[in-house]
Amino acid sequence: MQKGIVIVSGGMDSSTLAYYLEDRYPYEWHFLSFDYGQRHIKELQYAIELAERLDAKHSVISLVALGEMLSVSGSVLVDPKSEVPEGHYAEESMKQTVVPNRNSIMLAIATGVAVAEGAEFVAAGMHAGDHFIYPDCRPKFVDAFNTAEQFANEGFWDGGIIAPFIEMTKADIVKVGMALGVPYDHTWSCYLGGAYHCGKCGTCVERKEAFEIAGFDDPTAYAE
Amino acid sequence: MQKGIVIVSGGMDSSTLAYYLEDRYPYEWHFLSFDYGQRHIKELQYAIELAERLDAKHSVISLVALGEMLSVSGSVLVDPKSEVPEGHYAEESMKQTVVPNRNSIMLAIATGVAVAEGAEFVAAGMHAGDHFIYPDCRPKFVDAFNTAEQFANEGFWDGGIIAPFIEMTKADIVKVGMALGVPYDHTWSCYLGGAYHCGKCGTCVERKEAFEIAGFDDPTAYAE
Repeated sequence: MQKGIVIVSGGMDSSTLAYYLEDRYPYEWHFLSFDYGQRHIKELQYAIELAERLDAKHSVISLVALGEMLSVSGSVLVDPKSEVPEGHYAEESMKQTVVPNRNSIMLAIATGVAVAEGAEFVAAGMHAGDHFIYPDCRPKFVDAFNTAEQFANEGFWDGGIIAPFIEMTKADIVKVGMALGVPYDHTWSCYLGGAYHCGKCGTCVERKEAFEIAGFDDPTAYAE
Repeated sequence: MQKGIVIVSGGMDSSTLAYYLEDRYPYEWHFLSFDYGQRHIKELQYAIELAERLDAKHSVISLVALGEMLSVSGSVLVDPKSEVPEGHYAEESMKQTVVPNRNSIMLAIATGVAVAEGAEFVAAGMHAGDHFIYPDCRPKFVDAFNTAEQFANEGFWDGGIIAPFIEMTKADIVKVGMALGVPYDHTWSCYLGGAYHCGKCGTCVERKEAFEIAGFDDPTAYAE
């Protein structure tokens, strides 16, 4: 049976991606999640649930030690002492939530797993809303990285890296996911990782907006 | 002070690279070594020594859990149960010593560190003798990966990935290192990781040959 690797965080985008791929390809799936010491470990719990629900093999790769090293620069996502900026994702201040080179690191490891297991592709859930905040979510990055990985593994791997949602907005992703029955109340976005979504941080604002634009009721339980 | 990141394994090539860069640039250095569960932990001890000798900051990044996952496919370097093939590096059988996507993984992490610390470059010690065994040691890979990493970190990092020895043979590297006083008896090549170099495995054969071609006495203590 053909195999596919999917990077899943337990958030909305990658959960939808998993459903989308399962719907299209009769493959054997291996989901990979990365624990890089982020505060939102809740997201990881939803990733574990997702894999169980879709009957996929699941591996959690710890990059905690690496996260500690990188947090020297004060990247918010890996430093529990920093304040998380509130407000819309698009704000300049959100740039500080970038973990240096995160997508390259995850894609390189995922490609290693794909080569080891002979998987046809590595799929990741970047979308158009991320482009202007995260340079490593842009099509030009994914294309260049895919080229590099194909050179890196020439003769050992015929696969590739795909990002099916890279030209979609988050609202488009919600539409895809609703049609596939993605249980969005079992996905996590909030940076704070409390019992409920805070409703105020950048990802919470973005999450609400996506449901609103897509024209669906938001099933998320917010703290406010 | 400007900073540089150097990937050092404790082998001949990266040890020479460290000396070469220290000689050329008055930078603050951060050496990175990767422990991916390989048997030749001796190499890592020499990397630690190297950093002490050159007064560089040194971090060892453990990819052991990842190595275990990737060893599913039976890659010799991470599977303690496999036999190490003897003979010249160039042999087809040595292909099985490739750890899937190793250079991409190391370079992606090293680039993350470079971005976090504002380092001007990430340097790695690939050389021409590796090209036809390891596709991820070829200039076309390094160039493509460097392009991808620059896209990935646009606006956050002005650095690049360099591989100063990529067109040199191992004998050329020995010549460079002898001129700089690299203590090659404090570098490690052997895949077996015994008390002495075995003198028979692919890397030992390649090591001996490099000194011979370069016209220097080989200071290595071999078991034979």
